[in-house]
Amino acid sequence: MTSRQIRLALRAYGVGGPGQHNLWKDPRVPKNASIDIDWYIAQAKAAEHALFDALFIVDSQFIDATYPPHYLNRLEPLTLLSAVATHTRHIGLVGTLSSTYNSPFNVARRFASLDHISHGRAGWNVVTSFDTGTSRNYGLDEHLDYATRYGRALEHVQVVRGLWDSYEDDAFPAAGDVFLDPSKLHALNHAGEHFRVDGPLNLSRSPQGQPVIFQAGVSEEGRNLAAHVAEGIYAPGGTLEATREYYADIKRRAAALGRDPDHVVIFLGAQPVVAGTDEEALRLSREIFEADNDFGRKLGQFGRAFGAHDFSQYDLDAPFPDVAHLAEKSGRTRGTEIIRRATSEGLTLRETVLAFTRYQPSPFTGAPDTVAATIAAWFEAGAFDGLNVGFRTHEDLSRFVADVVPLLQKQGLFRTGYEHDTLRGHLGLPIPANRWSVAS
Amino acid sequence: MTSRQIRLALRAYGVGGPGQHNLWKDPRVPKNASIDIDWYIAQAKAAEHALFDALFIVDSQFIDATYPPHYLNRLEPLTLLSAVATHTRHIGLVGTLSSTYNSPFNVARRFASLDHISHGRAGWNVVTSFDTGTSRNYGLDEHLDYATRYGRALEHVQVVRGLWDSYEDDAFPAAGDVFLDPSKLHALNHAGEHFRVDGPLNLSRSPQGQPVIFQAGVSEEGRNLAAHVAEGIYAPGGTLEATREYYADIKRRAAALGRDPDHVVIFLGAQPVVAGTDEEALRLSREIFEADNDFGRKLGQFGRAFGAHDFSQYDLDAPFPDVAHLAEKSGRTRGTEIIRRATSEGLTLRETVLAFTRYQPSPFTGAPDTVAATIAAWFEAGAFDGLNVGFRTHEDLSRFVADVVPLLQKQGLFRTGYEHDTLRGHLGLPIPANRWSVAS
Repeated sequence: MTSRQIRLALRAYGVGGPGQHNLWKDPRVPKNASIDIDWYIAQAKAAEHALFDALFIVDSQFIDATYPPHYLNRLEPLTLLSAVATHTRHIGLVGTLSSTYNSPFNVARRFASLDHISHGRAGWNVVTSFDTGTSRNYGLDEHLDYATRYGRALEHVQVVRGLWDSYEDDAFPAAGDVFLDPSKLHALNHAGEHFRVDGPLNLSRSPQGQPVIFQAGVSEEGRNLAAHVAEGIYAPGGTLEATREYYADIKRRAAALGRDPDHVVIFLGAQPVVAGTDEEALRLSREIFEADNDFGRKLGQFGRAFGAHDFSQYDLDAPFPDVAHLAEKSGRTRGTEIIRRATSEGLTLRETVLAFTRYQPSPFTGAPDTVAATIAAWFEAGAFDGLNVGFRTHEDLSRFVADVVPLLQKQGLFRTGYEHDTLRGHLGLPIPANRWSVAS
Repeated sequence: MTSRQIRLALRAYGVGGPGQHNLWKDPRVPKNASIDIDWYIAQAKAAEHALFDALFIVDSQFIDATYPPHYLNRLEPLTLLSAVATHTRHIGLVGTLSSTYNSPFNVARRFASLDHISHGRAGWNVVTSFDTGTSRNYGLDEHLDYATRYGRALEHVQVVRGLWDSYEDDAFPAAGDVFLDPSKLHALNHAGEHFRVDGPLNLSRSPQGQPVIFQAGVSEEGRNLAAHVAEGIYAPGGTLEATREYYADIKRRAAALGRDPDHVVIFLGAQPVVAGTDEEALRLSREIFEADNDFGRKLGQFGRAFGAHDFSQYDLDAPFPDVAHLAEKSGRTRGTEIIRRATSEGLTLRETVLAFTRYQPSPFTGAPDTVAATIAAWFEAGAFDGLNVGFRTHEDLSRFVADVVPLLQKQGLFRTGYEHDTLRGHLGLPIPANRWSVAS
């Protein structure tokens, strides 16, 4: 490809349940959308028809009844993506799986299987699990501490990648009398600080060599992990200035580690709202916000910045409670930022929650030409390599695809046809050389 | 159903690779059959067209280069079955997953997801992992000891079932202003000897209430586990007498625990060989055996009865080595039986291996009417409720379906149409009541 083009990933919508935005009241949305595989296959097909790079499935592993409804009821991401795989042919399939509560051998098997089934379209979004609720679903009273969690995640990814190389590409000649050439099968014999895994994996190298590694690092440790291992990054939204700064920082860190910064593809999270006019889009955007404007629900969601802490136990109109230990412990940038602001501005708990959950329209809100122009401007300003777009319904996606994508294509900023069949191909990522194969 | 009918499950063939029986030399078999999802979808569709109850996927989690070729290269079972699910509508989908190296929370999520995706056709074949090679892929030097492994498996299944009941069936009214009724979401708060899991699961009850639990217990502990929790059982093949004895024993144990013996459906493993005449079938059966008659490979496979022990280190023509500690440790009935016979008959290692891997045609070998008559006779003698049939190729399955199944149907011994859409429906198993729902 000669000129740089925007990547587009679809953040699958309705993943946890149509409770969000009270969508279950919308007759176009099945009440059980989040567990309806046809709902996902339809999204994937629509995104593939629109030439998107990838479908992205988020995940979580803990709920209680106070949780936002869109976490309540969800399919396990790889089970979901495997079903989607055989109904699509081009679009990448990126699933979230926690490195904290899944063993490297199982993770390696499952993503390599998805890569075989999809003929080279699998991606693993590596997350670390941070809340006490999740750890209690896995037999632990407390989650691992922050540094341990990231050190462990780095080693986890390294082990998984090692297992993916167990067979060299030409291990199965299946010619003459030789089915397997045993010299091309390699044990890993990894013994590190957190894992000891012998291998080999019982699965041949997948079409991409290795599935693509995604990560979403915001904190110092998260950014370092991303710079070390991520080939795709899910960046948080924010102002143009903040996103450019994040983008430059990640590329700089990767380069400092000797990596080609083009091989770290940064996707910015975005929730475009498109309508006939800018005014109409802004009105729609506020309607969406108001539809889900329940303080109790916000309070629950707010607690997630502190490891799913229950803030309903405090007086809402007293000064912000002392939860500094929770922010430190969970190592969450957002928790620290919340405390800093609440303290410096002398806010009550209620004021703090409202300040951090206030209405703020997506920068990609407006008439089609406004949204396309903003996307182009941000892209050219170095805010992202791609967008990870989320919508509420099929209709919202269709509108974006029909009205905004063609404007990007006209400017040469988005592909007009697939040039590749694999996720690595779409993203311009090389197939990693097998560590055991030497030029001969 | 008024009269008792035979169940048929298809043990998916080519699962580990077409190295077995040198099948990769057969031009009808893709050289990468074991990792080709279309190969499995085709099997599942053929079995569904023939009205089978279930497709069954075996598994293993360790290989080395000396392993039999059909273990070498396989897709992870649930990833595989999820892809098959959306291409079929009736057939049950039973996947093997080890309770030893997968956490109950993840197992519960994955099978419940498959049950949602397949609209009520998921089954979990619960296995315990016994070999040192596997344990070293999960960071342990030695596998768990035998009693621990089975006690842990029982508790594992109990936790998984508890998690499957997290939501009551009517938890999501999605009416008026109520999406979730929080009183219908229940934490499990399990704290047992082996697991501590709080829950709840973040997934609603699946169409079967709970996926069907399968197990294959041969040893004393295995039979007890089966009697406690299994709703489907994979029984080992053997003589008519041995299989009847096993059948009666399992039913007796289940009844003694207060269970309805009809709710433990016993599938006998079978590899039918069908040809125009009995003689031709026997000749074909021997040909299949001879095609894979490699002593080195047999020696490797033989070692699996002792926890994947490497017998190539011993003099083949010296007396059978002292490996009693391995048989005891792994708790394998077969290992103990091998030692008993080698000792009492004074066999060398070579003689022992040959004695236990000698040619023995399947009892279901012959012309179609011979095979159908044998199946009917064994069924009526109480040897099984169903057969778990395995084949080498699509052609072998087609022959069985075209020539043998209609003879069973003519006798009223096999269905002529699906009466249900779920695996529980096919097997005559009730939907388990949710432990939290009380008659009101």
